[in-house]
Amino acid sequence: MTILEREDDGAVARLTMAAPERLNALSDAMLAELQAAFDALKEDRAIRAVILSGRGKAFCAGHDLKEMQAGRQAEDGGASYFDDLFRRCATMMQTIREVPQPVIAQVHGIATAAGCQLVASCDLAVAAEGTRFGVNGVNIGLFCSTPMVALSRNVPLKHAFEMLVTGEFVDATRARELGLVNRVVPPEQLETEAEALAGTIASKLGSAVKIGKQGFYRQAEMPLEQAYDFTGAAMVENMLNSDTNEGIAAFLEKRAPDWRQ
Amino acid sequence: MTILEREDDGAVARLTMAAPERLNALSDAMLAELQAAFDALKEDRAIRAVILSGRGKAFCAGHDLKEMQAGRQAEDGGASYFDDLFRRCATMMQTIREVPQPVIAQVHGIATAAGCQLVASCDLAVAAEGTRFGVNGVNIGLFCSTPMVALSRNVPLKHAFEMLVTGEFVDATRARELGLVNRVVPPEQLETEAEALAGTIASKLGSAVKIGKQGFYRQAEMPLEQAYDFTGAAMVENMLNSDTNEGIAAFLEKRAPDWRQ
Amino acid sequence: MTILEREDDGAVARLTMAAPERLNALSDAMLAELQAAFDALKEDRAIRAVILSGRGKAFCAGHDLKEMQAGRQAEDGGASYFDDLFRRCATMMQTIREVPQPVIAQVHGIATAAGCQLVASCDLAVAAEGTRFGVNGVNIGLFCSTPMVALSRNVPLKHAFEMLVTGEFVDATRARELGLVNRVVPPEQLETEAEALAGTIASKLGSAVKIGKQGFYRQAEMPLEQAYDFTGAAMVENMLNSDTNEGIAAFLEKRAPDWRQ
Repeated sequence: MTILEREDDGAVARLTMAAPERLNALSDAMLAELQAAFDALKEDRAIRAVILSGRGKAFCAGHDLKEMQAGRQAEDGGASYFDDLFRRCATMMQTIREVPQPVIAQVHGIATAAGCQLVASCDLAVAAEGTRFGVNGVNIGLFCSTPMVALSRNVPLKHAFEMLVTGEFVDATRARELGLVNRVVPPEQLETEAEALAGTIASKLGSAVKIGKQGFYRQAEMPLEQAYDFTGAAMVENMLNSDTNEGIAAFLEKRAPDWRQ
Repeated sequence: MTILEREDDGAVARLTMAAPERLNALSDAMLAELQAAFDALKEDRAIRAVILSGRGKAFCAGHDLKEMQAGRQAEDGGASYFDDLFRRCATMMQTIREVPQPVIAQVHGIATAAGCQLVASCDLAVAAEGTRFGVNGVNIGLFCSTPMVALSRNVPLKHAFEMLVTGEFVDATRARELGLVNRVVPPEQLETEAEALAGTIASKLGSAVKIGKQGFYRQAEMPLEQAYDFTGAAMVENMLNSDTNEGIAAFLEKRAPDWRQ
Repeated sequence: MTILEREDDGAVARLTMAAPERLNALSDAMLAELQAAFDALKEDRAIRAVILSGRGKAFCAGHDLKEMQAGRQAEDGGASYFDDLFRRCATMMQTIREVPQPVIAQVHGIATAAGCQLVASCDLAVAAEGTRFGVNGVNIGLFCSTPMVALSRNVPLKHAFEMLVTGEFVDATRARELGLVNRVVPPEQLETEAEALAGTIASKLGSAVKIGKQGFYRQAEMPLEQAYDFTGAAMVENMLNSDTNEGIAAFLEKRAPDWRQ
């Protein structure tokens, strides 16, 4: 891999988008490398939490506009290329939800358009004070229609619509109020905070976290009764795990659990 | 039109409910004029943003109770009239979402019952400090069942339920926290702020905003994967617009776009 | 009943979980008594609001872990028992939504795991300052999969996920910001505040509140157009109630309504 680096520290994997000269734009190459990285994490039982960050001045500035404009040279004016591009991008965003490990966006500088979608698509987000978030495609005549899918599932409707239609930025503090970000810290503490959060998650029983994450988004789309049937079955599965038996026993005996994980 | 005035300023249309002696109640006449006004805007390509405001002491105090009580004189005790009334009202509220232009509620005084629903049904809302919002039909024995459809899609469930079941008011600042309002300003700046927001939106590429608004509410009701298929197609359509090509090219060349819109 | 007490004061019923030595855990016995109590309220026309509280140091600490561990002694390792347990628990939580009276959680001390789910499942919640809320099953290897059904319908996704996956507590003030709690008061005012809220609700027309509560959650799961058809019919039914006629007439005549309720 050349523009997406992966570094593991114990049970935590850090993915770093490393195309700072392009503000880590989601070019064809970046999308492919992110897809490959998350596909690999799907099967990686040693990793229990993931941090996604970006090198340079920005977390991610969205799609690669130069590459997109070049796509217009095709006979169909780019229609097939654009269709394929947005499909690949949406697949990657959804793969973040499919990996068993919680994925934490570690965000600084700017997160715009599909870069803001990337933050919204991660399970959790930690941002540096001063980070600016925007779905500003409308400013150049390209409404952020795919980013709004992820954004509107994080942010109340009227506030999401305002961001989309004005193209204006919100800062990290406001992003937390809006539900787009979990924690905001001074820039010099950003990496430490993301790693502390990842460490907390990695200290939990991985099989339980996996059950929880995989159920979380699915149940959220179900009617209430169906959601309870679905998660009730997940609870039974979780209870029958021998590590969970050990976890509950240890709690009742006021000792630390001895997990095989 | 007699109780709903329309005034255009460039690409911005202002609709003013003008029945101040009835606190701009949603009488049969007012509903009909609002429906006609929004139907006309559906086809109006010159307008790119809409402001909805009310003359007098209140934005809108909801249904016209005297007219409703008079409806009871019918042979069926008013059943057919009420059924028709709530259908007409719901159709008008949904038409606000169907017009291609973002609609901004400019709210002052009070917005109660179906008047609060009207604020919730607009895409955006700017309120004067001190404005009071309530779904207070419960106080007179008529639960705000139709207003809660719009309210509960703006405001978190427990907070929406509290408003509905206590009939208590929330002020503009709280309404913003709850997601019912985007911006709160001193009364003397209300009109200016609504016009500034409308102006910002009107400065964007209308065809892109139209694609975005029409997709926004539809995708919000879809499961994630379907939402991405739907909005991905919208992105392709948007990209193939020649004005969008110009918008992106202008951005890359660091110049202002020359849009035909 | 031995571990769930009911005391009526006018039109308000107070249910008190009274197993303080077990932090009011949702044991088989407690679930059965809660189910019976809410089933009885379904048919109780004299009661128009319900308060649910807990005796001792905690509101409710979730499932009874000792009892659950004992369930493992069965031939199937507890599979049938756990399946039945989570079904009974989910049915009880959903019954809270089915009773016609609004149910107010009066919360103090801690509300954890299924105890936090219980707060989220009530229509409204009043909490004492300093109360701690958590879905902390993940700490012992049992992800709070069923609690997340109720939690994620109250709290924005990223904030709900953070609580679930870190197992960390949030205090009452933060719980209110997140939408899990309506009001936060000093501990010594908790009971008074819950009773004031219940009293406000009990002063309304019970038949109107019943229509409203029963429609609230159902319409929230419907697409917009269907939600309007459904609640429009509820409005007609409500209008045709003679007490509602009286309520509106009284309002127009500026006098107090004379309701038969």
